[in-house]
Amino acid sequence: MVPHLTTALTGPLLDLERNFLDHRTEIEQWFRAQWQETRPPFYGSTDLRNSGFKLAPVDLNLFPGGFNNLNESFLPLCVQAAQAAIERICPDARRLLLIPENHTRNQFYLQNVAQLVAILRLTGLEVRIGSLSPEVTEPTTLELANGATLLLEPLERRGGSLGVKNFEPCAVLLNNDLSAGVPDVLRNLDGQWLIPPLHAGWHTRRKSNHARAYSRIAQEFAQVIGIDPWRINPEFGVCGQINFKERTGEECLAAQVDALLGRIRAKYKEYGVSDEPFVVVKADAGTYGMGVMTVRDASEVQGLNRRQRNKMSVIKEGLQVQEVIIQEGVHTFETCADAVAEPVVYMMDHYVVGGFYRVHTERGRDENLNAPGMHFKPLAFETCCTLPDAAQGPDAPPNRFYAYGVVARLALLAAAVEIEETASTELEQAAA
Amino acid sequence: MVPHLTTALTGPLLDLERNFLDHRTEIEQWFRAQWQETRPPFYGSTDLRNSGFKLAPVDLNLFPGGFNNLNESFLPLCVQAAQAAIERICPDARRLLLIPENHTRNQFYLQNVAQLVAILRLTGLEVRIGSLSPEVTEPTTLELANGATLLLEPLERRGGSLGVKNFEPCAVLLNNDLSAGVPDVLRNLDGQWLIPPLHAGWHTRRKSNHARAYSRIAQEFAQVIGIDPWRINPEFGVCGQINFKERTGEECLAAQVDALLGRIRAKYKEYGVSDEPFVVVKADAGTYGMGVMTVRDASEVQGLNRRQRNKMSVIKEGLQVQEVIIQEGVHTFETCADAVAEPVVYMMDHYVVGGFYRVHTERGRDENLNAPGMHFKPLAFETCCTLPDAAQGPDAPPNRFYAYGVVARLALLAAAVEIEETASTELEQAAA
Repeated sequence: MVPHLTTALTGPLLDLERNFLDHRTEIEQWFRAQWQETRPPFYGSTDLRNSGFKLAPVDLNLFPGGFNNLNESFLPLCVQAAQAAIERICPDARRLLLIPENHTRNQFYLQNVAQLVAILRLTGLEVRIGSLSPEVTEPTTLELANGATLLLEPLERRGGSLGVKNFEPCAVLLNNDLSAGVPDVLRNLDGQWLIPPLHAGWHTRRKSNHARAYSRIAQEFAQVIGIDPWRINPEFGVCGQINFKERTGEECLAAQVDALLGRIRAKYKEYGVSDEPFVVVKADAGTYGMGVMTVRDASEVQGLNRRQRNKMSVIKEGLQVQEVIIQEGVHTFETCADAVAEPVVYMMDHYVVGGFYRVHTERGRDENLNAPGMHFKPLAFETCCTLPDAAQGPDAPPNRFYAYGVVARLALLAAAVEIEETASTELEQAAA
Repeated sequence: MVPHLTTALTGPLLDLERNFLDHRTEIEQWFRAQWQETRPPFYGSTDLRNSGFKLAPVDLNLFPGGFNNLNESFLPLCVQAAQAAIERICPDARRLLLIPENHTRNQFYLQNVAQLVAILRLTGLEVRIGSLSPEVTEPTTLELANGATLLLEPLERRGGSLGVKNFEPCAVLLNNDLSAGVPDVLRNLDGQWLIPPLHAGWHTRRKSNHARAYSRIAQEFAQVIGIDPWRINPEFGVCGQINFKERTGEECLAAQVDALLGRIRAKYKEYGVSDEPFVVVKADAGTYGMGVMTVRDASEVQGLNRRQRNKMSVIKEGLQVQEVIIQEGVHTFETCADAVAEPVVYMMDHYVVGGFYRVHTERGRDENLNAPGMHFKPLAFETCCTLPDAAQGPDAPPNRFYAYGVVARLALLAAAVEIEETASTELEQAAA
């Protein structure tokens, strides 16, 4: 089953997919040239929004947590792409230590870890799992609902080397986004690959850095295929000094929201879109959909009540929000049995290896579907994202998935550029 | 459906698959290291023989002709691997010219060409087909039985550049094995990638060079996983000066056959194999199963009748046989509805992308199944070759396919080494 795409527009609808399809040679050639210059991350996933007139990424995750949601028939693609990633980043690695998130009670996340371990083992690596969680004080076997088992082991630091008992890994792969900061145990590793680099973690990463990199890449790409970059690029603004608890910075935020809504309104007018523009206010350093708010008018961010302020002021691991990004909202026009369906695309190295829809019945098409405690039903992509078929309509599943894969790779490329550009941050922090 | 494996042995049966399964980490690590040092060919396929006690390649084709026989669900794997091959060999290529074999009436071969074109186009290349055939004097559209169409165009040489009308390719990919020698039109190309290099063609290539390279690689690999290299390596001998028509060199051939049969008998005794040993005599420069003969006793190669001598003396394109390789025969113990079934594995870059069985009802298990005019029924591999599963028996399909993939990659590596080592041949020929 593939979600149905509806939109109020008939004009530009499918123009974008058609354009991607017509320019697929230029597109692939352009990506090939980019990846010659920029090293792709080991892995990543991106949340897309598809309004028909606009297809854009709203988040790029460098610690993807849903490998268990991919179509099983994509497993060989994942293995092949993981082989490429290992050859590119750590070709001599024999033993790999995977460091997952600490939420050891989330069955869905644990199934993701199990799937990731399976993929990595199939590339011919010995894989063990080292946990940062203080609760894991001895080897702990978890039985998963899908029948798989996971062995979590406490991390052991021996000099410059990180491992678990009787296991000296050549490479350490993070599936933990470091929202709480970098644990000392991960610092100053000597002779071990640490993937991705520490500054890819959310303690350092800023959504606005990514948005800036994406914006430049979208401009360049749009020129190659002759489209308005707005069709793939959400507009954004940043507010640097905000304190929701102490109610400072509200004016700055309101002004930014107003300006951004104005720009979107102008674009909607240009394209004859009659939907109501909205923006999404997010913690610049946040993740997991915490500290996120949908706004249709600047007045909504002024005079927030206590509940709203509390919701916005704290993100994962109890961090206080200081900087926010205001991102153009993109309506979700894909539905599946009347439920809103949003695509998530998975990549390893620079290859698209699959994806799934987050299908959510309880939320509107302009709301954030990746909110805490939110339950979505994953719907794996039916076909893969690399088989566009010009003989079919631009909206046929292989072509829609191809379009997803194109935009997802743009976001991945932006993340790669972002990580390169922010590498000095890590050095500065290490020196401090 | 997966062919049934029967063998008279119960002892060493499945030992090999079990060993591959137990050592898959070492195996993948070893391959990773090899491919760091040796550049894989763009593509290749290999014919395997599986007697249960022995799993060995008997041929490695650098111009694979059966992409149409692969499981359709492997297409994404092919596309991903082809992307890797292009990035490795000709990353800047935008336009590729494919040069197929000349037999434009073979529907099966033409479907292979169409499939190859589809794969290459999906990587984002513009692809046109330039024919070496003197019959193709103008653009010729062929309608294939499966509904696809192919446009063959006459080659155009413009100075140092090869192309077709209004098409200047960056890369020229050969799917023509150059049995008839190198046409002048392919020589001294200036600024275009020619893939694979000319000396990979059968005008220069010798089966014995490949066998020597394979033998060394099999030795090294066998040591890594602790097996007798004979389990994966067919013994061979070479006879350099033979003329079947003039009946010279028969004694040399008979002596080699006798010696080789003796070595095989000793091995069979060591492993308790009660089957009758046999060898296969092949033209060292031959292809397409021409000039091939199955021999069980040295006396069989002496006093050949006129028909036999004629059959052995000419290979593809009317070339005369002068050198022969005598290769240990490996019994085929896989059957499919009582028909002999032999695996063929397909690779692009260093990735196994699929394979199929040649299923043939009219031949015995010690005969060559790739003979001229021979009709086989292709049976695509059900699952891919990269998903070994230790939880299943060593003979379960994913594990048997994994074993095929391992041995196929050894043969591909041998071809890569062979092509590196024979590169000087090409330079010498160019200088001559």
